[in-house]
This record gives sequence, C-alpha cells and structure tokens, in this order.
Amino acid sequence: MKRLGIAIVLLSGFCCAQNPGGFEPASTNVWGAAYPRVDAAGRAEFRVKAPGATKVQVNFWSSPKLDMEKQPDGFWTATSAPLVPGFHYYTLSIDGAEFSDPGSHSYFGGSKDASGIEIPEPGSTYYLAQDIPHGDVREVWYFSKVTGSWRHALVYTPPNYDTQPSLRYPVLYLQHGGGEDETGWIRQAHANFILDNLIADKSSKPMIVVMAYGYARRAGHPDPDLAGKPFGSPEAMKAMQELAAAFEDDMTQVLIPYIDAKFRTIADRDHRAMAGLSMGGMQTFQVTFDHLDLFSYIGGFSGAAGPLVLGNEKLDAKTAFNGALADPAAFSKRVHLLWIGVGTEEPAMMHAGLVRLHTSLADANVKHVFYESPGTSHEWQTWRRDLKDFAPRLFQDGASKP
Amino acid sequence: MKRLGIAIVLLSGFCCAQNPGGFEPASTNVWGAAYPRVDAAGRAEFRVKAPGATKVQVNFWSSPKLDMEKQPDGFWTATSAPLVPGFHYYTLSIDGAEFSDPGSHSYFGGSKDASGIEIPEPGSTYYLAQDIPHGDVREVWYFSKVTGSWRHALVYTPPNYDTQPSLRYPVLYLQHGGGEDETGWIRQAHANFILDNLIADKSSKPMIVVMAYGYARRAGHPDPDLAGKPFGSPEAMKAMQELAAAFEDDMTQVLIPYIDAKFRTIADRDHRAMAGLSMGGMQTFQVTFDHLDLFSYIGGFSGAAGPLVLGNEKLDAKTAFNGALADPAAFSKRVHLLWIGVGTEEPAMMHAGLVRLHTSLADANVKHVFYESPGTSHEWQTWRRDLKDFAPRLFQDGASKP
Repeated sequence: MKRLGIAIVLLSGFCCAQNPGGFEPASTNVWGAAYPRVDAAGRAEFRVKAPGATKVQVNFWSSPKLDMEKQPDGFWTATSAPLVPGFHYYTLSIDGAEFSDPGSHSYFGGSKDASGIEIPEPGSTYYLAQDIPHGDVREVWYFSKVTGSWRHALVYTPPNYDTQPSLRYPVLYLQHGGGEDETGWIRQAHANFILDNLIADKSSKPMIVVMAYGYARRAGHPDPDLAGKPFGSPEAMKAMQELAAAFEDDMTQVLIPYIDAKFRTIADRDHRAMAGLSMGGMQTFQVTFDHLDLFSYIGGFSGAAGPLVLGNEKLDAKTAFNGALADPAAFSKRVHLLWIGVGTEEPAMMHAGLVRLHTSLADANVKHVFYESPGTSHEWQTWRRDLKDFAPRLFQDGASKP
Repeated sequence: MKRLGIAIVLLSGFCCAQNPGGFEPASTNVWGAAYPRVDAAGRAEFRVKAPGATKVQVNFWSSPKLDMEKQPDGFWTATSAPLVPGFHYYTLSIDGAEFSDPGSHSYFGGSKDASGIEIPEPGSTYYLAQDIPHGDVREVWYFSKVTGSWRHALVYTPPNYDTQPSLRYPVLYLQHGGGEDETGWIRQAHANFILDNLIADKSSKPMIVVMAYGYARRAGHPDPDLAGKPFGSPEAMKAMQELAAAFEDDMTQVLIPYIDAKFRTIADRDHRAMAGLSMGGMQTFQVTFDHLDLFSYIGGFSGAAGPLVLGNEKLDAKTAFNGALADPAAFSKRVHLLWIGVGTEEPAMMHAGLVRLHTSLADANVKHVFYESPGTSHEWQTWRRDLKDFAPRLFQDGASKP
C-alpha cells in the first residue's frame, strides 16, 4: 500500500539532523524540536521565533535570566553558561510578557504549563529508565465529598504488583510543591524510575506511591474575593488556612480510604508514609502531625513545618506539633522516621529555616535525619536526591506481606 | 498549628471571583486562571498580557483567527462568536510568533504543547466524569527493540479490572492524530470517561484500550537531513514510509506482545480492534490490513486508507488492501467491523475522500459503517462522537470471559 496519506502528516516528525559543537536536543523537548539543546558541559542553547519582539530573555527560575540575541531571520538565540544538572523550569520573557518555549514539552509549575530543560548529570542513572522491571503509574479519579468534585491522582504501583495478587504493600503519599500539580513527581522528577531503580537493587522495599493534587477548595465555599486584601491580611490568611484544611480533610477523609479500598495496601500507620516538597512538605507536617494515628514516616523536602522554617519561630519541643515531641524517646518509638532535607544553594530563608529546624530538633534530642543536597537550589534535582535518600528508609520493618 | 508557610505558597490559588455576564473559567484552564472563559452561548473571552506587542490574535485551528484588542493595562482581550461545542486547540499569534496561552492547560497537538478550550455541549454528558464506576488509565513503559528506546503508552483498564482477576478482556488499540501523542485521547477527548459511561449503561462491553505513541524512529536509523528536499520528493517519501513501517513493526512485534503479556487480554484477532483519528486512521488501515491475522475490527476516524482518501485514487475492490476486499462476503465474515467516519464541516478534501471511500465500498458491496458527525470539523468533538458510535459495536460476540 502506498503511504501518501500518512506521509503528509508524518512530515513534521523530521527536523534538523545537524549536531554542531556536540549539542543535542534536550530530552525534555517535543518530538522533532532541535532546540533547546545541551552539550556535555551542561550548557544550553535556546532558539525561538519572535520577529516582532524587541527584548527576549530565557527566564530560569533557579538561575539568572539569560538575554537572547535577535538574528536576521526573526529568531532569537542564546547559549547559557554550564547549568547545574537536573531539571530546570523556564519561560521566555518577551517584551514584558511570559510564554512557554514551543520547543519544550510543558511541565506544570508556577501555576502554569511552563517549559523545562533537563541537564544530564554525569554518572547519575538513578532517575533514568533502565532495563529492569518497571512499575506502572495509574491515573485515578475519585469523587471527594470534601471538595464536591472529581479529583485526579497518580498512583505508582511497583513492578509485579499485578502478578503477585496475594501481596499487600505499604504506601507513600508524595506531594508536589506550590504552583505544581500531581503530575510533577512523574514528569519532572521521574519518581517512578527512581523507585524502580531502588526496588531493583533492593535498596527500597516495594511500595505504592500516591501523588495527589495539593489544592482543594471546600464544596460550597467559593473563592473569596481577595482584591485589595494584601498578603498577610486577616482575610488572606483565613482563606489560605481554609484551603490547607480542605486539602487535609480531602486527604484523610476521602483519598486515604479510597486508596486503601482500591489498592492492595497495608492499611495501618506502620505502613503509611507522607512526604512532600516545599508547600508539600509543609502540608506533610500539618497532615501527619494532626494525624499521627495515620502516619509513622514523615518527610519534608525543602519545606517542613511552616512557622518553624519560614516564620522564624523557635522550636519549643514541649508544645510544638501539639506536644508530639515533648517526650523524644516516645516520639521516636511512635514515628519511625522524621526526615528533612534542603539544597545547599536554596534561597537563604529556606536553607536557614531547615538548618534551624534540624539543630532545634537535635538540641531537643529528637531523632531525625537531616540531608543537604550539595550544589542544588529549590529545584527538582534536590528533590530527586531527597527521594533517593528517603525511600530506602521506609518500611524496612514492615515490607509488603500477604 | 499556624499555617503561615503553606499560606505563602497557596496564595496563587486564588484569583478573580468575579463572574460578569455569565462567563465562567473554561474547564481546560489551569487552577485559578480566570481566562479564557466561556458563556452558555459558547462564546469565549480571552485575555493575555503582552504589553510590548503590536498585534495579537487567537489562532484557532478549526475556526477563523480572532483579533485581540490592546487595553491600557498591557493586556489584550477578545470575545469570540459562539464556538462549536467541544475541545478546540488554539495558540496566540503575537507579532508573527506563536505561543501558548498561560491561562490554559497544555494539550499536545501540532507537535507542541498547545492551548485548548472546552466549549460545553448542552445535554452531552457522555464524555464527562459521572457518578459511576471508573476505569484507570495506566502509564506504562516498554522497551522496543524496533526503536531501540523506551516507549510510553497509556492503557485504560475498565472498572473492576482489579477486583475480577479471573476475567480476561478484549483490546482496542486507539491512535492519536498527526502532531499529537499518546495523551490526546485522554486529555483532549476523555476517552476514559466515554468508555466508563458506555460500559455503565451496558452499551459497550468492558474492554482494555491501549493508546500508543504513533511516531517511531527505527533503531540505528538517524533522521535523514531533508533540508532542501521538498515534500513529495523521493527522499521525503522514503523517509515517511520508513517512519510508518517502524511504527507498524513496533506495534505488531513489540507493543501487542507486551500488552498481551502484561494485561489480562484475550489475545486473539476476534478480540482485538484498532482505530485511530486522522494519521492514526491511516495507520490503522495500514497496520490492520497488513495484519488481518491480528485484528478483526477496524476504525478510521477522519482518516483511513491514505491514497484512497487523500490521494484521490479509485478503490479497486479486486486489488485494494492486498486483495482483502475481493470477496466481500468472505471479508465481512473475517472482519467483524469496518467503520469510517468524518465530520460534515471537515476540510473538503478530507470530507470528500471519506465519502468517496464510503460510496466505493458500498458500490463494491463491502459491508461497513459510515458515520458523519453533524456540524463538526477535523476536531476532537468529531472523534469523541466517533468513539461513542464505534465502541458499542466491538466485541459484542466476544466479550470478556474467564
């Protein structure tokens, strides 16, 4: 059969076989896009069409902006200095407005589908797909009586989940950061491949990982009109607390029962962990310390107890977390793992806040793990490393069982 | 516990509680984005910041462009005429360049993460999440010896797949169109909800639906440099045929065996269907007619046999499809369903091509179904309707079984 018809629509798949200077299209690109591209030193070349623009910049979220230069053909180009390995969000600033790069796939961050570029880390394979058994990532939809709406979550099931129907598994609830959504841990971080690799080399126990959407509006409570109400105003604070409480209720009253009914979980606190990054870390501390009957492993990745990390409050071990730390020995027996981490290059307030929480916990003799990711900022490479350190510490005494 | 930290990062979730003129944020928007928004008549209002631009348009792919007007605050705004119900791709044309709308989620089409807007269809609930049992959508990764790479596919498993471990299911392979990817049938079309609804009201048999990525580069065959080689040149045609053949080999030699090994399928031709839209319909005709030993249900949605639909070739029932139609009675016995569909408002070549294929098949006494979607163009509303008509015709004599 002739392939004329298919040929017409396949044409867009071909592009630009040249490869000067060792630059290769980024793994985060859409099919066929030659730009952005990356070289072995971690430098990135960008190219975008904007013939009518007068100023175009690459707007990295964790690095300085990069000015682009206009070329005679209406395209703008720029080459970065070597970037820190890992996944970097960016957008294009075009004459005072902000858009995504059509050459990049979109990654939800900053409350929008932003662009991203992956800079390979030499020697790091722990977040790449390798020739080992792979788990699935399931999209599930559940109706929440808390929000009065259908909600979407992603659920990683470990390799062989289907072929070992008599086994039950522990569960890690793993939350994204502010402005992100339930897809971030998979699309940006490759959490599924991280778990696949950790399980394959027996560093981690097989587990189910649930990634929920971290924003929740309570049913029948329309958004307040905050126009003219500055951040920190009583109205804004009240609205924020309502959002946070709605998430907590959705998670503990709807999502966890749904997951325990649908999947072969071990549905008790000894086999349930929660961790999250940034906002998700703060949510983790709120949800777990409010519900220590439900959780026994706690992880805060570049985010933990909000007032203690960002609010500059002093840890009072007698009263903090509803008094949970008042007896450190009892706490360590009850909570199998308290884990906090931060990147060494994070913004000063975040880094100092996590360090202060760490030293305060140490001073109060509260057993915990503190991890610093060398050379990385408030970005996904930090959180990939966090997960790589955190996951092997989970469920070692309570693995999957019949 | 105080919620200061969470409050900081939750702030972006609030925006714009006003609702003048009955316009509501589109369901396709990102969380908190007030624009674009839609009213009951199907009109859409757009708003985007571009203070330095001199000309901004909403670039619909299936409707005329819409000029936007610059406002004193640096934002551009426009209100459309009533749009056809359904999902519409669009981008923003800004001074000769093309970008996505930051207010919209991204939907992969046109070989990029484009914007999309959902116009509700009054009375149509068949593609919405309803209070019925829901299937899952699984992301799976398989290594293809054909492409030498890891490939990603989405797999819909019907409600209760997990709770009825003794049942096996028939499989529909469902392909996206040119410039799209394996996510389109879920994100843009809500194929999972369409199947959930059809299965709930017993119109469709429970089935597994596999959505594969329709582009494949053969391992060790780098893209040819087609610079200066016009479309239709021997070099370009050869390249296109190689892409199409690589997809066919990946599907028949790797994907189908992988799916049959991993899922509880009924692994025979009587329980295997393939359909696709546009390019995916052409691929369906190529793959199924080359492998009638593997498939017995065939669907072409706004795309079928390329040369017959787009190439203006005449159907010779004696020789077409390797002679499969030469004996119409034998063909009907062997192929349980041959289904083609097109929207009445599609571009003339596509509409005329499908009508001509339909009448040619009728003239040759080849049993088939021809469906026209009233009032819709080459767009997802056509393909949602196609799936709604097509899926209930599958596997009625060969449903899930132990």
